[in-house]
Amino acid sequence: MDFQLTVRQDAITDEAALKAVQAAVAKGRELGCAMVTAVVDPGGNLVACVRPTGAFVASVGIARDKAWTAATFGLSTDDLHNAVAEPPHLHDGIASRDGVVLFGGGLPLRHEGRVVGGIGCSGGSEDQDRACAQAGMVALGLS
Amino acid sequence: MDFQLTVRQDAITDEAALKAVQAAVAKGRELGCAMVTAVVDPGGNLVACVRPTGAFVASVGIARDKAWTAATFGLSTDDLHNAVAEPPHLHDGIASRDGVVLFGGGLPLRHEGRVVGGIGCSGGSEDQDRACAQAGMVALGLS
Amino acid sequence: MDFQLTVRQDAITDEAALKAVQAAVAKGRELGCAMVTAVVDPGGNLVACVRPTGAFVASVGIARDKAWTAATFGLSTDDLHNAVAEPPHLHDGIASRDGVVLFGGGLPLRHEGRVVGGIGCSGGSEDQDRACAQAGMVALGLS
Amino acid sequence: MDFQLTVRQDAITDEAALKAVQAAVAKGRELGCAMVTAVVDPGGNLVACVRPTGAFVASVGIARDKAWTAATFGLSTDDLHNAVAEPPHLHDGIASRDGVVLFGGGLPLRHEGRVVGGIGCSGGSEDQDRACAQAGMVALGLS
Repeated sequence: MDFQLTVRQDAITDEAALKAVQAAVAKGRELGCAMVTAVVDPGGNLVACVRPTGAFVASVGIARDKAWTAATFGLSTDDLHNAVAEPPHLHDGIASRDGVVLFGGGLPLRHEGRVVGGIGCSGGSEDQDRACAQAGMVALGLS
Repeated sequence: MDFQLTVRQDAITDEAALKAVQAAVAKGRELGCAMVTAVVDPGGNLVACVRPTGAFVASVGIARDKAWTAATFGLSTDDLHNAVAEPPHLHDGIASRDGVVLFGGGLPLRHEGRVVGGIGCSGGSEDQDRACAQAGMVALGLS
Repeated sequence: MDFQLTVRQDAITDEAALKAVQAAVAKGRELGCAMVTAVVDPGGNLVACVRPTGAFVASVGIARDKAWTAATFGLSTDDLHNAVAEPPHLHDGIASRDGVVLFGGGLPLRHEGRVVGGIGCSGGSEDQDRACAQAGMVALGLS
Repeated sequence: MDFQLTVRQDAITDEAALKAVQAAVAKGRELGCAMVTAVVDPGGNLVACVRPTGAFVASVGIARDKAWTAATFGLSTDDLHNAVAEPPHLHDGIASRDGVVLFGGGLPLRHEGRVVGGIGCSGGSEDQDRACAQAGMVALGLS
């Protein structure tokens, strides 16, 4: 073959995804909030999601979109926000796109240099959402 | 008060939802298929979802829609199919509505006479989907 | 680690995707039709698409949906059609879902036992669509 | 006939569209970024699109929308942004419409005074997106 047929693109397992979701939900409980958490694969497709009792119904979509944004841009939602902060019309143009979230609580999950998924948390303050997504990532031994 | 202000509407916990999801996924594994499973509350909003490694990406939406259909109509997707089988224009009208699924694999979760949620499975044959949704329900001690 | 973090999920390169698209378009020209061809990755996301001059505008969406269906179900659109042919309400329920195509012209692209993408063709008769998708796959040395 | 029946509306060929796409992708590689590039016809319908390995999945939609915006308004996305900058309610009204992109990276393709298509690039900084769209246009001998 005179061309490259495939490129390796690992994806998070459901076992790992659920482990991350449960760690994020537990962190939320510790912080006193019901934290919806979603994990997607590198293509942005859902692998696992839990909405703890008492959480906002609306957070299901937000958590999923944060995970999607982080996985498909390969950047945390905070880093993407910074990357498009200026000029304002760029920020607004990206912010208004379906599925894109530019506030905290979405992290790409990277392993051996590859994006293997994304995690998104919604249900508390922006800082609480961030802390829970972080806790989910750390539970997988990732950073 | 000369009117009744509220009506009791119990909802499945995330703990129970995840237990049901994991039982359905395990049943799928036993049957040799990767079974996406979703559980929703009585309002049709997602509580828990897992897509096992190897499952169809397209099944995420189907499982969620089966759970939504079962919870929001209070009928299994099979029973709803029978209920609207005739006349044809009724069937077609219901079948074509967003989110409605009329084939097997979605069950309402009932406790003490109330619908407390719904479970939907997608990833195998119609019979496999049914068996896994059933396994999820049974894992909660419901019938 | 006491859990499996990732699963390998290779994806077609843009180089290979474009090679397949061009082979399918060339086959269409040979058959006398302008064949829109799309290739997606295993997550169903677009990698390459060409609409040859003279092709139906509407075929852009059909080709993409065929590729998406084949990649995300891991089955050709014909095989999926057969898998859900009976009972009729299962067929109709799957057929009516957004993005699902159950007629010929969509093939999964498999390499070393993994789905690495999907190809979809639209622009001719069902048989011409099938022949072109096949030609695209064969151009990659896949079967 | 006492009325004019038709108006000439030339469209870019798939051959030219692919040439532009490949030039833009190559320019992106030179700049160190994986640049999704889309070309549409004067009606805003897709003619060719390539997402290079490693590019953001989310860029597929952005590149297509930039090309659509440029072709269907007959203005670069930057010029359209300037044209609707004031008053704010005009800007916001246009910016929020489906498919409209008001940041850099989309160019109309003009030949002999007619818009024959549009090119859109997404995957780098706004300046990188602009440079790649420009490279695609220049590869066709247009300006």
